[in-house]
Amino acid sequence: MLRQSLTAFFAASLLMAAPLAGVEGKWTPRQVLELDPAWLKELGLQMPPEKLWDPNRGTGLLSAAVNIGGCSAGFVSETGLILTNHHCLFGVLQEHSTAQRDLMTHGFLARSPQEELRGRTTRVTVPRRFTDVTKAVLSAVPAGAADLARWEAIEKKQKELVAECEKKPGARCRVAAFDGGVEYVLIESFELDDVRLVYAPPRAIGEYGGEVDNWMWPRHTGDFAVARAYKDGKPYRPEFWFPISRAGVKPGDFVMVLGYPGRTVRSLTAAEMALQRDGFFALRARIYGEWIRLLEESTKDSRDGSIAVAGTLKSLNNVVKNAQGQMAGLARGRIIERQEQQENEVLAWAAQRPEWKPAIDARRELVELAARRRATALRDFLLQSVASGPVALRHAAQLVRLAAERAKPDMEREAQYMERRLPQLKARLERDQKSFYRPADEALLRSWLRHALSLPAGARIRAVDERFRSGSLDDAVARLYAGTRVTDLAERMKMFGETLDQLRARRDSMLDLALALEPELRAFDRAGREHEGAISRLRPVWRRAVAAHAGKPVAPDANGTLRVSFAHVKGYSPREAVEYLPQTTLAGMIEKHTGEEPFALPKALLEAAAKTEPVKVPLNFLADADTTGGNSGSPTVNGRGELVGLNFDRVWENVANDFGYNPAIARNVNADIRFFLWLLEHVDHAGSLLRELGVQDR
Amino acid sequence: MLRQSLTAFFAASLLMAAPLAGVEGKWTPRQVLELDPAWLKELGLQMPPEKLWDPNRGTGLLSAAVNIGGCSAGFVSETGLILTNHHCLFGVLQEHSTAQRDLMTHGFLARSPQEELRGRTTRVTVPRRFTDVTKAVLSAVPAGAADLARWEAIEKKQKELVAECEKKPGARCRVAAFDGGVEYVLIESFELDDVRLVYAPPRAIGEYGGEVDNWMWPRHTGDFAVARAYKDGKPYRPEFWFPISRAGVKPGDFVMVLGYPGRTVRSLTAAEMALQRDGFFALRARIYGEWIRLLEESTKDSRDGSIAVAGTLKSLNNVVKNAQGQMAGLARGRIIERQEQQENEVLAWAAQRPEWKPAIDARRELVELAARRRATALRDFLLQSVASGPVALRHAAQLVRLAAERAKPDMEREAQYMERRLPQLKARLERDQKSFYRPADEALLRSWLRHALSLPAGARIRAVDERFRSGSLDDAVARLYAGTRVTDLAERMKMFGETLDQLRARRDSMLDLALALEPELRAFDRAGREHEGAISRLRPVWRRAVAAHAGKPVAPDANGTLRVSFAHVKGYSPREAVEYLPQTTLAGMIEKHTGEEPFALPKALLEAAAKTEPVKVPLNFLADADTTGGNSGSPTVNGRGELVGLNFDRVWENVANDFGYNPAIARNVNADIRFFLWLLEHVDHAGSLLRELGVQDR
Repeated sequence: MLRQSLTAFFAASLLMAAPLAGVEGKWTPRQVLELDPAWLKELGLQMPPEKLWDPNRGTGLLSAAVNIGGCSAGFVSETGLILTNHHCLFGVLQEHSTAQRDLMTHGFLARSPQEELRGRTTRVTVPRRFTDVTKAVLSAVPAGAADLARWEAIEKKQKELVAECEKKPGARCRVAAFDGGVEYVLIESFELDDVRLVYAPPRAIGEYGGEVDNWMWPRHTGDFAVARAYKDGKPYRPEFWFPISRAGVKPGDFVMVLGYPGRTVRSLTAAEMALQRDGFFALRARIYGEWIRLLEESTKDSRDGSIAVAGTLKSLNNVVKNAQGQMAGLARGRIIERQEQQENEVLAWAAQRPEWKPAIDARRELVELAARRRATALRDFLLQSVASGPVALRHAAQLVRLAAERAKPDMEREAQYMERRLPQLKARLERDQKSFYRPADEALLRSWLRHALSLPAGARIRAVDERFRSGSLDDAVARLYAGTRVTDLAERMKMFGETLDQLRARRDSMLDLALALEPELRAFDRAGREHEGAISRLRPVWRRAVAAHAGKPVAPDANGTLRVSFAHVKGYSPREAVEYLPQTTLAGMIEKHTGEEPFALPKALLEAAAKTEPVKVPLNFLADADTTGGNSGSPTVNGRGELVGLNFDRVWENVANDFGYNPAIARNVNADIRFFLWLLEHVDHAGSLLRELGVQDR
Repeated sequence: MLRQSLTAFFAASLLMAAPLAGVEGKWTPRQVLELDPAWLKELGLQMPPEKLWDPNRGTGLLSAAVNIGGCSAGFVSETGLILTNHHCLFGVLQEHSTAQRDLMTHGFLARSPQEELRGRTTRVTVPRRFTDVTKAVLSAVPAGAADLARWEAIEKKQKELVAECEKKPGARCRVAAFDGGVEYVLIESFELDDVRLVYAPPRAIGEYGGEVDNWMWPRHTGDFAVARAYKDGKPYRPEFWFPISRAGVKPGDFVMVLGYPGRTVRSLTAAEMALQRDGFFALRARIYGEWIRLLEESTKDSRDGSIAVAGTLKSLNNVVKNAQGQMAGLARGRIIERQEQQENEVLAWAAQRPEWKPAIDARRELVELAARRRATALRDFLLQSVASGPVALRHAAQLVRLAAERAKPDMEREAQYMERRLPQLKARLERDQKSFYRPADEALLRSWLRHALSLPAGARIRAVDERFRSGSLDDAVARLYAGTRVTDLAERMKMFGETLDQLRARRDSMLDLALALEPELRAFDRAGREHEGAISRLRPVWRRAVAAHAGKPVAPDANGTLRVSFAHVKGYSPREAVEYLPQTTLAGMIEKHTGEEPFALPKALLEAAAKTEPVKVPLNFLADADTTGGNSGSPTVNGRGELVGLNFDRVWENVANDFGYNPAIARNVNADIRFFLWLLEHVDHAGSLLRELGVQDR
């Protein structure tokens, strides 16, 4: 069925005069094997699809596309070298930077393996096996279970499957739900926890254009970095890695983008999409936008402060610009209106077919759920941001939750507080000290509290009301920080081992706030689980009707699992009378150089550029790949599986493709491997690294 | 010679694959007749060049291109209708706007001749005759005259020529110097002083995109307005007018832009260009940029204040953005460096030819003059801006100067204070009341004084030092405004007739400041005249060497006289990986509509657009015409002399073409006549105006 409909789609696209139209779909490894090989060949694939993935052996070229802390990455040598984005390894640069040795600014090159810098929390996950466990999961749900019970049953079954799977030595497993539970897949991977930074360019190259150019085209960013995975203290030797192409790409060339797209929401109903917009993106834009200003103001006179909040700022800026783009894209593409229209068509179709009545009911219930959640959107957003906002409150809340969870048997704990995850949590609680700068943190907490105090009746936070409703908020926050030792690294690490009673006995102001918030955070989590239970009950019923009405299968929403997108190097028209060509070069990078951040190139690069023909050094390129957040660092490979670049962004017009794919503007931004090679050779003189990558004679 | 070299140029351009390359040159009417008719035909001219201009009869199609208060415009009907830019007639809209009847916001359409709105100071000048008077002018200079005497002799001779010329009834004459005096031409025109507004769209259309889009592409601005010239109370009947083309243009089409380009500086030496940059554009950007902020802040809570400063703000914004573009373009195009290189080539060439030694000396003296003027650049800028800055000080200075000049015989006065000009000055002093808003004016004067107090030793302003060096500047400025009646319209008009003694006897604080400044303003003017005298002595000597070295003549720098530029409809690449197509449509205008200024289209337009195919209503187009400020409102006509649009801007990348022409980025922005016609027909339902324009059946 899949094969047939895609062939039909392809035949239709052949009728068009232009080059191949964009191909929607983040395909799973299994789907790749179900696609018509002739169609893939026509697109540009120059190898048998089985070379991408062999489900029996649990390996193939796709196993060279790995996950690295929320980013994607690719093995590029038999000696465990991994290529990913500069911004994906930025945390390691930050971790090893000091006021005296500012690696973020100056970049880093290990001249020998001894110089490589280990990232304390950096992990690489390599995929090994994908097993459909839908039946097993659903049969664990008791008949007539309420939504919370349903969620708990699914969760328990998933944990069991994961525990069983992880009995294999070195295995890391998860169960991933596709489109809310149309399918559940057990994914077996293995983790490499010794990852060391080998190379990163100066920030002025790796982030060239900064926030000004972020999400933009034309782009001129050298968003590359290299790490090496170790196993048992020795360089890890992957079975597959991507050879590096020196030939590069030209307009029209076929490419594949391999990686771990995080989350898309194309399977939501229109009402849920509208809630995403108003109750999520709009709040992100407003509140995180405020936090960006607060962080900038509170650190403007402090070098230490600026270094401390650099990572947070970077991520907030990214998130806010994304939120704005999502909203603009939703409006411009009329995506929600179109989804609603499509829904109405499905409803009309289902209304004439009694066997699909449950789908009509499921969709109505989904819409009602969204309406109810709308009323508490701001409170939910604030409670959610306890886990990502002011560092001190986040730590206090984590310590309280940890103490509470540790009192339970391991299998009954929340996933992130299970024993296997605790070393990571502990490392994060340590590493976060680098991101803590008290004036900035106080400013964020004041803002968080002010918003909490503004909540409407019926959706307020009692712990905040009780403590902060009267008196000066500034004074209250100052007292909070004066009365806590959570912000003290050594003391915090002691707290890591303490029970709830011990934490209470400390009479620590921030812990006390977290203790007071804990019941409300629990209730919020519980409501979330209940909601997820409802979704797992309703979404599959509705989505199966949508698929049946469409008469053809579609790639599922992104969920952090390995996917492949088929694409071509291609420009686009962002607006009337403007055409974007798909490639930029070093010449354009130099044209943008003003000497002022974020357009201040290092002298070494300018000098090297002066000795070459900059227009002959390709730098970034566009393709019409179907990507989203999490695809950062994805290997972009040609039809022979050779690496030609790294995905590192989408264009602004395409940000809302999380809600729907539009071939006219669906463009991802790739860093061209030829710039990376030029940089290593002519600016960094990194001969031995180039030899290891197989692109320089030994 | 001219004919030959241009033919050679054209032959060379034919060798290129692309369409015709940009043609540098703002040609004078006489030069047009010297160009090779075959070449003009090849470019796209579909009429004999003599139809453009007949020097014997002193008329031709070019006489339909008129000057309207610093802008260009074109006759478009036998009944005296004139088409020009919205921004060129904005002053008339402002003049007739009240808080109750806001024509600026809502636009205007006269449904009958009785409703037309006369612009108090609006004048139209129609060209009639161009006579080379170089010999007459230069022979008036006594042998061995010092520079000031030289200037005075030239000035006197010019006045005599003008006076003689204006003996003809209705004649308005001027002598224009080309390239500093390589040539002097007596230009005879006649003036129509009864000009009435017939149509202007709402500001939201005529200025769509506002400061955001100003100088930008893609553009979507309906920058059109219609006036009618009257003579003896009846519609003026021009001999020539431009028929309106309903066919419009497409990429590659030939167009001519006819008009009155104000000033370019391509004939300056590199040192003088650098002084223009640092001592003029940089100061404009800095000080006028500050004034924009002050005007916005001081009027933000006042509707009257906002209306009063609207025109000033518009012009300051325009000037600042222009200054920034000039500086950016100079840097990007390395224009000064190239001019210097060219100069060095001419110098090397001249060094081997003893007959050209005077040119070498002249150029050295030009460079030395520039170096001396650099030291007093800020003071000179401030003294100069007395005539364009705070309204009260400007009026006081004008009244003082008027009283002083009126004591002299008419022929010995400064040109703008001669009897023939006084009615205009008086009308301006009246009309300016509309632009006066005291809090804004005080803010500008405080700024002006603060800058004056910051001047370096040796270049200070004594009248300012004596009064404002000590004490609070804020208090002093408040006292100035409290103690003056210059800001009172009736009182000011009385002052218009008073002598210096009478003005002194008033003991008016602002007049007293102007009286104290007067000697310094006089000295500044005198230094300026002396400088002009030197330029008139040196520039022609140097420029003749440059021309001889080049071996081909060039069109002279713009000087406010009638010129023609030959061009083609054509896009460009503003930067790497971006291509601009040369046409926009109503569809793009609607795409930009956000509902918030400057992208808030009137409901009537949106409704009319919903009933059409917006992509079929062309709106703006690019051509590679050689234009500058003053070309605003220039008729853009096709090879048959039919009007296809109105020039209204240049693109940002091309602003520095005042210093040098670059065919790759030399693009002017035109409003497409087809949008104007659509607007009249479908939004304004202006059937009778369309019939008068000959584009709708009667």
